[in-house]
Amino acid sequence: MRNDNRTNEEMRRAVIERGIQPQADGSVLIRMGNTHVICGVSVEENVPPFLRETGSGWITAEYGMLPCATGSRYRRETKGQSGRTMEIQRLIGRSLRAMVDLHSFGERTLRVDCDVLNADGGTRTASITGAAIAVADAFRKLAGDGRLEKMPEITPVAAISSGIVNGEIMLDLDYSEDSHAETDANFVMSANGNWIEIQSTAEAEPFDDSSFLAMMSFARKGCRELFKLW
Amino acid sequence: MRNDNRTNEEMRRAVIERGIQPQADGSVLIRMGNTHVICGVSVEENVPPFLRETGSGWITAEYGMLPCATGSRYRRETKGQSGRTMEIQRLIGRSLRAMVDLHSFGERTLRVDCDVLNADGGTRTASITGAAIAVADAFRKLAGDGRLEKMPEITPVAAISSGIVNGEIMLDLDYSEDSHAETDANFVMSANGNWIEIQSTAEAEPFDDSSFLAMMSFARKGCRELFKLW
Amino acid sequence: MRNDNRTNEEMRRAVIERGIQPQADGSVLIRMGNTHVICGVSVEENVPPFLRETGSGWITAEYGMLPCATGSRYRRETKGQSGRTMEIQRLIGRSLRAMVDLHSFGERTLRVDCDVLNADGGTRTASITGAAIAVADAFRKLAGDGRLEKMPEITPVAAISSGIVNGEIMLDLDYSEDSHAETDANFVMSANGNWIEIQSTAEAEPFDDSSFLAMMSFARKGCRELFKLW
Amino acid sequence: MRNDNRTNEEMRRAVIERGIQPQADGSVLIRMGNTHVICGVSVEENVPPFLRETGSGWITAEYGMLPCATGSRYRRETKGQSGRTMEIQRLIGRSLRAMVDLHSFGERTLRVDCDVLNADGGTRTASITGAAIAVADAFRKLAGDGRLEKMPEITPVAAISSGIVNGEIMLDLDYSEDSHAETDANFVMSANGNWIEIQSTAEAEPFDDSSFLAMMSFARKGCRELFKLW
Amino acid sequence: MRNDNRTNEEMRRAVIERGIQPQADGSVLIRMGNTHVICGVSVEENVPPFLRETGSGWITAEYGMLPCATGSRYRRETKGQSGRTMEIQRLIGRSLRAMVDLHSFGERTLRVDCDVLNADGGTRTASITGAAIAVADAFRKLAGDGRLEKMPEITPVAAISSGIVNGEIMLDLDYSEDSHAETDANFVMSANGNWIEIQSTAEAEPFDDSSFLAMMSFARKGCRELFKLW
Amino acid sequence: MRNDNRTNEEMRRAVIERGIQPQADGSVLIRMGNTHVICGVSVEENVPPFLRETGSGWITAEYGMLPCATGSRYRRETKGQSGRTMEIQRLIGRSLRAMVDLHSFGERTLRVDCDVLNADGGTRTASITGAAIAVADAFRKLAGDGRLEKMPEITPVAAISSGIVNGEIMLDLDYSEDSHAETDANFVMSANGNWIEIQSTAEAEPFDDSSFLAMMSFARKGCRELFKLW
Repeated sequence: MRNDNRTNEEMRRAVIERGIQPQADGSVLIRMGNTHVICGVSVEENVPPFLRETGSGWITAEYGMLPCATGSRYRRETKGQSGRTMEIQRLIGRSLRAMVDLHSFGERTLRVDCDVLNADGGTRTASITGAAIAVADAFRKLAGDGRLEKMPEITPVAAISSGIVNGEIMLDLDYSEDSHAETDANFVMSANGNWIEIQSTAEAEPFDDSSFLAMMSFARKGCRELFKLW
Repeated sequence: MRNDNRTNEEMRRAVIERGIQPQADGSVLIRMGNTHVICGVSVEENVPPFLRETGSGWITAEYGMLPCATGSRYRRETKGQSGRTMEIQRLIGRSLRAMVDLHSFGERTLRVDCDVLNADGGTRTASITGAAIAVADAFRKLAGDGRLEKMPEITPVAAISSGIVNGEIMLDLDYSEDSHAETDANFVMSANGNWIEIQSTAEAEPFDDSSFLAMMSFARKGCRELFKLW
Repeated sequence: MRNDNRTNEEMRRAVIERGIQPQADGSVLIRMGNTHVICGVSVEENVPPFLRETGSGWITAEYGMLPCATGSRYRRETKGQSGRTMEIQRLIGRSLRAMVDLHSFGERTLRVDCDVLNADGGTRTASITGAAIAVADAFRKLAGDGRLEKMPEITPVAAISSGIVNGEIMLDLDYSEDSHAETDANFVMSANGNWIEIQSTAEAEPFDDSSFLAMMSFARKGCRELFKLW
Repeated sequence: MRNDNRTNEEMRRAVIERGIQPQADGSVLIRMGNTHVICGVSVEENVPPFLRETGSGWITAEYGMLPCATGSRYRRETKGQSGRTMEIQRLIGRSLRAMVDLHSFGERTLRVDCDVLNADGGTRTASITGAAIAVADAFRKLAGDGRLEKMPEITPVAAISSGIVNGEIMLDLDYSEDSHAETDANFVMSANGNWIEIQSTAEAEPFDDSSFLAMMSFARKGCRELFKLW
Repeated sequence: MRNDNRTNEEMRRAVIERGIQPQADGSVLIRMGNTHVICGVSVEENVPPFLRETGSGWITAEYGMLPCATGSRYRRETKGQSGRTMEIQRLIGRSLRAMVDLHSFGERTLRVDCDVLNADGGTRTASITGAAIAVADAFRKLAGDGRLEKMPEITPVAAISSGIVNGEIMLDLDYSEDSHAETDANFVMSANGNWIEIQSTAEAEPFDDSSFLAMMSFARKGCRELFKLW
Repeated sequence: MRNDNRTNEEMRRAVIERGIQPQADGSVLIRMGNTHVICGVSVEENVPPFLRETGSGWITAEYGMLPCATGSRYRRETKGQSGRTMEIQRLIGRSLRAMVDLHSFGERTLRVDCDVLNADGGTRTASITGAAIAVADAFRKLAGDGRLEKMPEITPVAAISSGIVNGEIMLDLDYSEDSHAETDANFVMSANGNWIEIQSTAEAEPFDDSSFLAMMSFARKGCRELFKLW
């Protein structure tokens, strides 16, 4: 049995609180158990140089962690971001860009900030799940304010981890499970049931096809539950 | 009359929520109206080089702002902190070091992180007021865990702004007041009624002695109310 | 038909040249078609702080690209590495650490440098494949020099990309294929047939399970051919 | 009695030497006892982005210290300025901007550099006092060269420290006094007798109102003497 | 007798391989004994700000070393280049700009990258000699592609080291000679027999005129041989 | 005739003022015409890692320029030193290490700071000439304080520029001469008449042997005059 009496294929309780940062164009506090992330969206009326005069918009993400979010203090990244941080924010950005046709909202940039208040495993997948909702809210605001003629067509996106811990396949690992997992995987799914990103890493023994397929199947089930929050 | 129907010498509503970051040694969410700051404390079992083998501990602070805390996105400081940030975190650190005899808790460092979730003026004074309570909680935890033989003697500290807006002296400026104030001042007070730090800056016209004394008097009144939160 | 007359499941010609950097402890020039990478290994008689006095060694990697390796000049990363570079070198490091029990070679660090002389797609997978051979050579040298009592047990590792291009599954994408792929995936395999890392990213449309399984199957075939170079 | 036989309310001898850097638009060497600072002004025919097309000019300052200005070598700040340096140069800039209506000299920037040749306490206040004179000289040059139709109206500015040392209020602390002061304060005054900036910090015990008022009174007297140098 | 049976005035064997980086506008692998450098040239259709609208082009160089090029690993310069690196790339750039009238190829920049694959002394002079040939090839390509009406007039440039080792004058020092040389000198010569740059440094005893003239004479002879590679 | 009525082989007036920075271990203000440099020396009781437990001391230099030293403001190097600065400070350090047997003063570091107050050409050679005298003074102080048993044996060092301007050989170029010189050379000489460093650079046409020998001869004459300041 897991720490919090979950079955192996059971996700932690997910809660979404909207409008947590009233000065943002969209914002969400997502809680997946004890992992809490604030996701805020800022809309800027320009695009990066490579997109100028293409008619395409852009969505990009940054990720941070409050120093006291973790057991031993997480050093503030004021002299350059770590490789882990960059990897996570690139993943969040790619995932969110799959939500919408980038030409449907003009030459604007949605800048998404995911900041972890408390970390208990799964911060990158919680960030994606929460940020996707905040992005949808930002588009709703743009349409509501008349800055967009109509609401762009949105495909919801959600993400969840799974892994192999002590030989067992589990969904949505918390920190204590993650820190001694043999394999750790992250899945980003589109609401149409297809995959946007799959990342699976052997932390100890390499994993075989059947374990991988089981993690994939758990993740599919988890993402479907997360889409109910929409 | 002020935006929110306050009188000139009236402070915004102050609310303290403790234990907001359970993995920290002490943590507080302070709300002064729409200014919200998380203050977390981490205790480390060492001191900076200049204090080694002196028997003295150390208290230091860092300050940050979530990008969506403000109206136009606040750029993440990943390539060096701004002068404003450094100035604020130095002020917070100095103020907290006045709370306690640094020799009373051995060669330990209390690292205090103040992160602004929402900013509506007065973030540096809210940080000091909230952080002081979180520091006291961290000492209580050290004593409770037996890492300190007894609780060190603490002198509560609180801070508040005042200023001159359209020629009127006001306490606890919000962002809209602060952004067109003629003079902007910050006061840090000890619970014994003496001053730890006074900073007063003419943004437009230089100020005279009597205006200054009025701001000082308002601030004294404000700090006394803040000590009731202890 | 592909640019170079390959079938969809055909890999580019792979060539390994050993000893290209005689001052290194192990070095390889790997060519996968027009992608050329120098992989050099340096052995250091110490480990990072978190491993001191654990009896465990460490393997870590850095990745770089000569400025003229690509069509438009690749700017030298002298003011901080890009997110892409960090992501790649972290992947190379993780993959190589799966080759060997880290306790089998004592508190030493193998520092692996992968530098791309010419880039035509697949530089990260070529780096892993080449570096694994250079690492094995470095262990052979350590054993030969008597610095290790016996050669550690090595599990060969190889890596290859696959993807979906114009709706077709293809193995080992070159740059022109990669730059308009709908899905791009990288697979790292152990010689025992299990997976060390799987990364699959939808660049355009999300991908379904059957496409993913086809990419996986092509990659398995590719890695098996690469193990013949050992 | 103080080191140099001064009474508590006596300032060190202040000497101004003009034109020390003939290639600058205005320059001053100020000596306050053994504290020596070169202040140079460069006029640039543009303003920072936030002032473009507003008709307003700008005055900004940078502060530095020669490595051998202090007893133990002061490390050259080639990898980012310290918090102390940033705090000082922000204070100098704010103080100088109070000298003149920024609209009176068009969209120009006066860039003021204060470099300490020898440091014996009070470098920031000496910088302000010296720089104000150099700024006035630069305006005189602009008017003399015909780049300004007429000399802008200047309000002289001066600054001085005071503090509490061994329980006594003193004016213009030297390094040995400053380093064991209980309270350290800096005052910037306008020639009309009003305050531009007040900063007072308890280094040990918090200070009470009457001590603060005494420091304020000493500072007023000191600034009045400094205006005689104009 | 020297390590490799060379006489004191004998250069190591020099080999040029062209077109080593097919995506560059010109590229050369130069081998001077065991010193191997890749020199690649990229042409950009713009010039640095100080040359805009002057009709003049620009040639600039960057220098790097693969980490495994040397006996003990050369740390990758990802956080700023060392003084040595900057000195070398400035020397390479100055030398190449002496090859051609900068007005003869319009407002273009030739960006030259010299990356050392294996280092055995004389990397900066090998870089100059190899890069000069790559630059000539890049001009040939520009003329061949019709981007230039005619090939600019090129003056070949070559460079070689000489030094005093154990009291003897020697040409083209390898690493073991260089590391205990009393004097180390580098000479850059134009094909017309005049000097572009001379740098001579006493590593131990200062050197006298006659030794210097002997080093100069050896270098002249060496450069003349290098021009035969053109 | 030159700007200031000098003949071609005439140096500008050189003036040395000692003890300009009383808190340094040795300090000099050197004036060569309108070029003014402060040179300060700090003695540290340790050496860089590569010299620990070798019995050898070390001498190293840093170079800076006050922003108002030049006609157009010289940007403060707070985010990394320029290549020019690094080149100059490496040259100064090498030159000063030739003054003394590094084993004669134990495991100490002499850190030399050369800061240009006013620049009119020849700042690097003035720095060397002035710093050498300050270094000698620092040794005298060490011996006087009893930190050294006896004064180490010092070989004076001096440096001067020469060049080709409008086809004429000239000694000690000022800024207006230097900025349109065809060749620019710097010479560092030991008091025994031998050379420590020679650097000669063609800014326009390559130079021939006879011009070079003439520059060398002028420089010898100049250095001999500079030794009279000792």
